[in-house]
Amino acid sequence: MLKVGIFGATGYTGYELVQILTRHRNTEIVFATSRAEAGSYLSEIYPQAPDVPLIDPDDVDNGGLWSKVDVVFLCLPHAAAAATAVKALHHNVRVIDLSADFRLRDADVYAKWYGHNHPAPELMAESVYGLTEFVREELPGAKLVAVPGCYPTSILLALQPILAANMRLSSPIIADSKSGVSGAGRTPKQNLHFVEVSDNFSPYSIGRKHRHLPEIEQVMGWWHSAPPSLIFSPHLLPVPRGILSTIYVPLVYAVEETAVRTLYETTYANEPFVKFLPAGKHATLGHAVNSNRCAISLQLEGQTLILTSAIDNLIKGAAGQAVQCMNVVFGCDEREGLVG
Amino acid sequence: MLKVGIFGATGYTGYELVQILTRHRNTEIVFATSRAEAGSYLSEIYPQAPDVPLIDPDDVDNGGLWSKVDVVFLCLPHAAAAATAVKALHHNVRVIDLSADFRLRDADVYAKWYGHNHPAPELMAESVYGLTEFVREELPGAKLVAVPGCYPTSILLALQPILAANMRLSSPIIADSKSGVSGAGRTPKQNLHFVEVSDNFSPYSIGRKHRHLPEIEQVMGWWHSAPPSLIFSPHLLPVPRGILSTIYVPLVYAVEETAVRTLYETTYANEPFVKFLPAGKHATLGHAVNSNRCAISLQLEGQTLILTSAIDNLIKGAAGQAVQCMNVVFGCDEREGLVG
Amino acid sequence: MLKVGIFGATGYTGYELVQILTRHRNTEIVFATSRAEAGSYLSEIYPQAPDVPLIDPDDVDNGGLWSKVDVVFLCLPHAAAAATAVKALHHNVRVIDLSADFRLRDADVYAKWYGHNHPAPELMAESVYGLTEFVREELPGAKLVAVPGCYPTSILLALQPILAANMRLSSPIIADSKSGVSGAGRTPKQNLHFVEVSDNFSPYSIGRKHRHLPEIEQVMGWWHSAPPSLIFSPHLLPVPRGILSTIYVPLVYAVEETAVRTLYETTYANEPFVKFLPAGKHATLGHAVNSNRCAISLQLEGQTLILTSAIDNLIKGAAGQAVQCMNVVFGCDEREGLVG
Amino acid sequence: MLKVGIFGATGYTGYELVQILTRHRNTEIVFATSRAEAGSYLSEIYPQAPDVPLIDPDDVDNGGLWSKVDVVFLCLPHAAAAATAVKALHHNVRVIDLSADFRLRDADVYAKWYGHNHPAPELMAESVYGLTEFVREELPGAKLVAVPGCYPTSILLALQPILAANMRLSSPIIADSKSGVSGAGRTPKQNLHFVEVSDNFSPYSIGRKHRHLPEIEQVMGWWHSAPPSLIFSPHLLPVPRGILSTIYVPLVYAVEETAVRTLYETTYANEPFVKFLPAGKHATLGHAVNSNRCAISLQLEGQTLILTSAIDNLIKGAAGQAVQCMNVVFGCDEREGLVG
Repeated sequence: MLKVGIFGATGYTGYELVQILTRHRNTEIVFATSRAEAGSYLSEIYPQAPDVPLIDPDDVDNGGLWSKVDVVFLCLPHAAAAATAVKALHHNVRVIDLSADFRLRDADVYAKWYGHNHPAPELMAESVYGLTEFVREELPGAKLVAVPGCYPTSILLALQPILAANMRLSSPIIADSKSGVSGAGRTPKQNLHFVEVSDNFSPYSIGRKHRHLPEIEQVMGWWHSAPPSLIFSPHLLPVPRGILSTIYVPLVYAVEETAVRTLYETTYANEPFVKFLPAGKHATLGHAVNSNRCAISLQLEGQTLILTSAIDNLIKGAAGQAVQCMNVVFGCDEREGLVG
Repeated sequence: MLKVGIFGATGYTGYELVQILTRHRNTEIVFATSRAEAGSYLSEIYPQAPDVPLIDPDDVDNGGLWSKVDVVFLCLPHAAAAATAVKALHHNVRVIDLSADFRLRDADVYAKWYGHNHPAPELMAESVYGLTEFVREELPGAKLVAVPGCYPTSILLALQPILAANMRLSSPIIADSKSGVSGAGRTPKQNLHFVEVSDNFSPYSIGRKHRHLPEIEQVMGWWHSAPPSLIFSPHLLPVPRGILSTIYVPLVYAVEETAVRTLYETTYANEPFVKFLPAGKHATLGHAVNSNRCAISLQLEGQTLILTSAIDNLIKGAAGQAVQCMNVVFGCDEREGLVG
Repeated sequence: MLKVGIFGATGYTGYELVQILTRHRNTEIVFATSRAEAGSYLSEIYPQAPDVPLIDPDDVDNGGLWSKVDVVFLCLPHAAAAATAVKALHHNVRVIDLSADFRLRDADVYAKWYGHNHPAPELMAESVYGLTEFVREELPGAKLVAVPGCYPTSILLALQPILAANMRLSSPIIADSKSGVSGAGRTPKQNLHFVEVSDNFSPYSIGRKHRHLPEIEQVMGWWHSAPPSLIFSPHLLPVPRGILSTIYVPLVYAVEETAVRTLYETTYANEPFVKFLPAGKHATLGHAVNSNRCAISLQLEGQTLILTSAIDNLIKGAAGQAVQCMNVVFGCDEREGLVG
Repeated sequence: MLKVGIFGATGYTGYELVQILTRHRNTEIVFATSRAEAGSYLSEIYPQAPDVPLIDPDDVDNGGLWSKVDVVFLCLPHAAAAATAVKALHHNVRVIDLSADFRLRDADVYAKWYGHNHPAPELMAESVYGLTEFVREELPGAKLVAVPGCYPTSILLALQPILAANMRLSSPIIADSKSGVSGAGRTPKQNLHFVEVSDNFSPYSIGRKHRHLPEIEQVMGWWHSAPPSLIFSPHLLPVPRGILSTIYVPLVYAVEETAVRTLYETTYANEPFVKFLPAGKHATLGHAVNSNRCAISLQLEGQTLILTSAIDNLIKGAAGQAVQCMNVVFGCDEREGLVG
């Protein structure tokens, strides 16, 4: 039985994680923290949550709880996550970090996009970027896993086969992404008010302005020797959850659609959580929400490869993928606790 | 041309009022206030708003603006509204108050439900309760109009004919009401976050706990010599706007449905903004939203009279009814600026 | 391993049932029928469904499939369900019927409300009305279970403790119910078009007109020696799933709220799927959707008992309750396959 | 007073048209047809519609109604529209056609995309493509106006300034468009059922498969001497109305964003129904729904010009633009009846 601690259990991601771990047959939640809600129960915030008591994060130190856990999940804001990771690793507790702190490998890029110096730059190179499907050899026993961002997950899973084939591509790749509102977090804000979102649809941070852009381009560089640049356009959808990315990849040479389809079929043939759709079908939110599945479709239009990719932003894009990572780190069945 | 000032123009009600007055052929907006947004334009907040500059409410005094207006609309919190009304009346400016400050006639009841003493109790008896359909004789020339609350409007318009007939009724009348989210205001709150409201439906303050209860019972007492008590159960609907009330009135004696229908038909035959539906039809939000219309249906089941009543909470339940009042106060066509 | 057949697998209820049975550790789906979609797979209709082949219902007879199953679930229209139940029982296969065919005990009442004579009146008395919480002694080994309707489930679970106490009550009890759209079925209809439902809210069949009324009154009569009459007002909510009923029970004598709370606490103390909420809380859809839970609240206002009751119409109101019944019929853990 | 006839008044577009014409001070609706609903009133279908009687379209011929109207609006399926247009023109009645029949100029292209030969190919060249902003000289007195499709309107208004500048562009231009459900029409279909659309988001006919593609490319060819090809990806949004297109235009040479902004500002400076947004703002559905406005934004990212464009599909994308055309055809104020 893995002993688990959760930092930041009251956000949407933290709650989703509690739900998954409650179903998981090999884990036990030892503690769950919330600075704002310490002293109450998670069930007071989410009506279907189990009665998990919420403690102040400082009480993990004060109460000697580090020695009671094997692994902690960090559902914390950036910077706070890194500081907590340092403590956990000091106590030999493994870390699955759902924040952005250990996704980037370059401290300067981090500083530029997050507006402050990285709190623990020495750890940046040690983390495993937990896109499980492509790091199954690196995850077992890993001390620090950076769970990919929600948009990057939807886009990178769609791009990997074509990038890894290393064929010549033009710039830019365009990823036109649409996300449900839970991706913006649980804190009340004007632009998340029901009346503002309902019946509306809004682009934001489009072009090269969103923090997930450098994360995606970094990984593209791992897979392709001369990666194209990226245009990434997020939009806010009037739904509670789910991301659909429509991606346009400009090929330099003409290829057959069947050849590209074969790349994808080969890559994802045995993946429990990636569903590559038959020709003529497109991914929709309905393929993915409430599951850890990523659905991907492909269509070639002249020399433009059009991909659609759908995930649940809170599951495959956050808590589900985090548990998938944990399963591989500790040698559990990768599917345990997850719906595919 | 009526010169109009608006206090509190950036809430949902204030914005709706600006839209209606912009269409109105006999009004000119002289100023619009917003303490938080002073210095900007309403169009920076609402993408389809006209370019109305927002001034600090203190600048109405400082800038000598009272002498430039004939009437002010108060879209302010309670207490703040009363304080502003005192100033306006002092300057001989007429007041259409959309807050709760002048709806109740009893200062003790006000203090009990609003948690503080009334700021201007001497004015309470002078206000006209602006349910236009039933105060057309009192409104012309009125100095201070209290625009009815949104729930009270939907419930009272449905109850008036049966109450005014003064037949014997049992207690309690039950009003099971459902409101869209704009009724809760524009300020971001956890329970108004898109993710909390979407796919959900929630009762709140049910029974005899909501502040609109004493307002409704007060008016019931004007219309019936021995009014029943009220059970009033509001619910939050996952829609941006609209109220539907389903109302159950227990009759003491058996009557024919046709006789009751005649009461309603007679009362509302010539009303431009009340639509009494034919037998077999029920009011829905679709009958009322985006208009100043109240749709009402009636069905008799044994000795229980079942009424349904639908309005747009921001129009007939607030800004539209306020303009309807203004039209009658100043002798304009009652329908000017309004869609029926 | 229980061998299961499903008649009518492509409706919302049938699909929900497949999902639950796929999770269930003691069942195996032997066949699933669909007259319209025979020859295709359930996954072609629902993107997250397992690859269950759909067969024509006539092929159950023709293919000798009756001998391969222990139990069948009937997600069929009324009349068709009864005809299939007769066949199943003839083959000694147990029947869990989700239609309305075996809920009523009186053939005349059935004929009046469903517009045709009952196809198998001799079986009406043999069925068990599967509101599991109150028939745990009758279900084991039952041959024919009538799964309660969705609205009746939400209303009856809320009423049982107060009715079973047999205290004097006035008439009518009023149940103001609100249901998500899946309750109206999957067949496309004008009033179920997204544009008609979205931003709208509509009463329908209110008073004493809905087919669930005689079902509810029948069961009220089992629990109370002089049951009140019922006013039942359904409304269509713009959400995909969930029912919330707000119920008003007129008591004849004054009682203490704590005394009534004790009745409910006692009744539901150990129920895995009924959550009685603490004072001051109300049931919301969020308490119940995507689970087999019924959440109930209670508040006494003078002599009116106000109950709120929330379920997922497709789970506790249909497929989940059906599996709960099956579990008890066959001696499995009552919670198997279900989320509470 | 213009005498107007409407063919196909009960669809979403027809109803929107009735609403606009009811507000219009220079028009009178002489007849409105509906083959399916002849004999009833529009108010029986739409609860806020005026009491317009619906007649069978054949009764226009039989009843000699052609001589009573100056202009007819055709809200009919393709082919049916062309046949009706022929009749109208024969009676010297002007035609504003909201179908696709007279948008394309090439009968072969029409036959390929619509699956049948054009019913009146001799009229194809005579129609004016009614994107009012760019045909104000051709519209006055026009006999036959083809109102642009909803997606083409949103895309073409965004593309016109950059195309008309005739600078060198690469292929393809990518238009990633998202539409509310009313764009799919009022006829009930499985994929338009509330439960299917709600909480979902779906691409369809993406790439070069949608019938609006040849229409858009045709007009691009009028504006640019070597127009790029188009990739056009429609998606279904869970909202009742509105289209947002995010458009990516690959420039061949580097330019300054301010230079491109000037093109747009110049083009749209005095347009009553096009709002070009300041730098840093993006178009959202909230800018456009319930009005005849098209909101457009621009951002240059390297050599990719990113445009966002929002309209109400039923107004600027259909009925509103049709009335705008009519106003110019007959010399009325272009804004009459319309909200900008």
